[in-house]
Amino acid sequence: MANDKNLALIYKKLPQGFPKAGQDLTVEDLGADAAKLPSDGIVARVIYSSLDPYLRGLLRDPSVKSYFPPLQLGAPVKSASVAKVEQSNTEDYKVGDLIVGRLPIQQVVAISGEELEQLKAAGLNKLDTTGGPSDIDQYLGVLGMPGLTAYSSLYEIGKPQKGETIFISSAAGAVGQLVGQLAKHEGLRVIGSVGNDEKLQYIKDLGFDDGFNYKTEKPIDALRRLAPDGVDIYYENVGGEQLEAALECMNTHGRIVACGMISDYNVKNPEDRYPIRNLMMVVGKQLTMRGFLVANKDFGPKWRQEHQQKVRAWLKDGSFKAKSHVWNIEDADKGFVGMLQGENHGKAVVKL
Amino acid sequence: MANDKNLALIYKKLPQGFPKAGQDLTVEDLGADAAKLPSDGIVARVIYSSLDPYLRGLLRDPSVKSYFPPLQLGAPVKSASVAKVEQSNTEDYKVGDLIVGRLPIQQVVAISGEELEQLKAAGLNKLDTTGGPSDIDQYLGVLGMPGLTAYSSLYEIGKPQKGETIFISSAAGAVGQLVGQLAKHEGLRVIGSVGNDEKLQYIKDLGFDDGFNYKTEKPIDALRRLAPDGVDIYYENVGGEQLEAALECMNTHGRIVACGMISDYNVKNPEDRYPIRNLMMVVGKQLTMRGFLVANKDFGPKWRQEHQQKVRAWLKDGSFKAKSHVWNIEDADKGFVGMLQGENHGKAVVKL
Repeated sequence: MANDKNLALIYKKLPQGFPKAGQDLTVEDLGADAAKLPSDGIVARVIYSSLDPYLRGLLRDPSVKSYFPPLQLGAPVKSASVAKVEQSNTEDYKVGDLIVGRLPIQQVVAISGEELEQLKAAGLNKLDTTGGPSDIDQYLGVLGMPGLTAYSSLYEIGKPQKGETIFISSAAGAVGQLVGQLAKHEGLRVIGSVGNDEKLQYIKDLGFDDGFNYKTEKPIDALRRLAPDGVDIYYENVGGEQLEAALECMNTHGRIVACGMISDYNVKNPEDRYPIRNLMMVVGKQLTMRGFLVANKDFGPKWRQEHQQKVRAWLKDGSFKAKSHVWNIEDADKGFVGMLQGENHGKAVVKL
Repeated sequence: MANDKNLALIYKKLPQGFPKAGQDLTVEDLGADAAKLPSDGIVARVIYSSLDPYLRGLLRDPSVKSYFPPLQLGAPVKSASVAKVEQSNTEDYKVGDLIVGRLPIQQVVAISGEELEQLKAAGLNKLDTTGGPSDIDQYLGVLGMPGLTAYSSLYEIGKPQKGETIFISSAAGAVGQLVGQLAKHEGLRVIGSVGNDEKLQYIKDLGFDDGFNYKTEKPIDALRRLAPDGVDIYYENVGGEQLEAALECMNTHGRIVACGMISDYNVKNPEDRYPIRNLMMVVGKQLTMRGFLVANKDFGPKWRQEHQQKVRAWLKDGSFKAKSHVWNIEDADKGFVGMLQGENHGKAVVKL
């Protein structure tokens, strides 16, 4: 059943500011040779790959140190993916097995025995869909890394208490949409910010109490309007002006879950980043602001089991909704840039 | 032994930007009538009063809400003070008793029975000097609120680990000088920033490993020079450019103890505050930044006993040093402003 084409999303050129589709990122056909069965490995067909904001930080000059190694120029972008084993020369994997891990965004991949060991050490697993949805993309979203990110950080840092108010920026994104539904589940008032009116409708459909479009209303005005009694938890995905507004409106003992600051990621000159001038609020209001990575032991590993159990059940009984925004592999470069520009409603994925 | 004069530090006028001595704050003689023994109260002679940065926030328009009520225009400034009971009409206090609490900065004060009850509820105590130093000013500094502030927050938020590096801004101040000595005691490398070269010598005399004068060297250059392996704990008293530099140099999992941001307190227009543009470091480096008030249960109340026991012992065996910077009551207005401008080496106090 070999398909002669083997399309992949390639990291072509170091971007300056926002990456450009077709220039910094390209979709190329690697041909059938790129997927020959290794003597001790497997060949797998990738079904879905995840597009996440953190990937932007991996398109960088390798001399810049950061928490995650950079991607390799000229090679396929690697990202969390679900794949199905098509051929196998190892007893560990049978044809038909589903696997989930950090794979190239490439239609068919060959993985040697040595690479399998490395991938396993980095978290490659067989995907067990027992008690979970049949939509495979969900295992990259609500049941994948973004889901675990949302779940672990909301509880570990946010410490939600019934009756409190949470403000979530990038609320229609992969993480934001889940944080809002979790917070509703805990009895909080939930306010979200989004970048267009369709997303505003989307988060209201998910059960958010209210929200605003930060492109048409200043965040500080919107928060004063929607959270007159103040904000207890700010779930931070954006940074900049929204962070400043949140600091202004936080209540005493408020918590800021610093998941991301995407507004700063694509700014070429540090001087062009939005300046924050009200951090003294952290002192007077006794705020806690904490950054985290889901791989850290207090987050992903600590909360993984509870996350899978609860969210699989909630998806099943319909109390939880989660949408994916799908780009086909032919448009994966546009999808990558679109995800960074906030075009997606829900989890951004590539369908291969 | 009545002294006809009864000098007090008066909050005269709402300051615009930096308070002006002799204008916004004045020293005035309230006369003997201001200290007549109440039928159910006491008369006490104030020995030392504390000058602390947080007092600046109390000279404000009463319509502005904050964590601590504003001071009353036209009345003496109230601050942590040690006083000796000179006359008493209540069995609770005997002539000669030392008391410590939030009293007017005024040579002789009359306190009614009702006021005594209110003060007790707010923390007025008899001062027990057992096992402690004979220098009364120490009970407002290293053994008072600044000492407890330093002790509780360093352990509760900073979580110092042997071998780590701590950077302390305003290192020669009341809190900073203690944090540095505590951190040395725990086996950390200790770097401090100060505003002149005499203070730089002072913190080195206290045992700090190194330091810099932020007025003659850019904080970012100094930190890169003095902490080439990065900073694990930033003890924040200043904000602005020093916070920005610290964020840049923090190590993964670093902690920022947000005790104060004095550089922002006297800025009239919020737009004139130093802009922070690198908060995304909080995400990538998994930093925790936390503000606190010493009155919060996780801080003062939790750590008070340990603080008193250990610091009294360390002062006695000489392993701990603490200096006060003394202004006489005649110059208390200049002292208040001088404290805000960082003229003090060590704890700023008024001697009455």
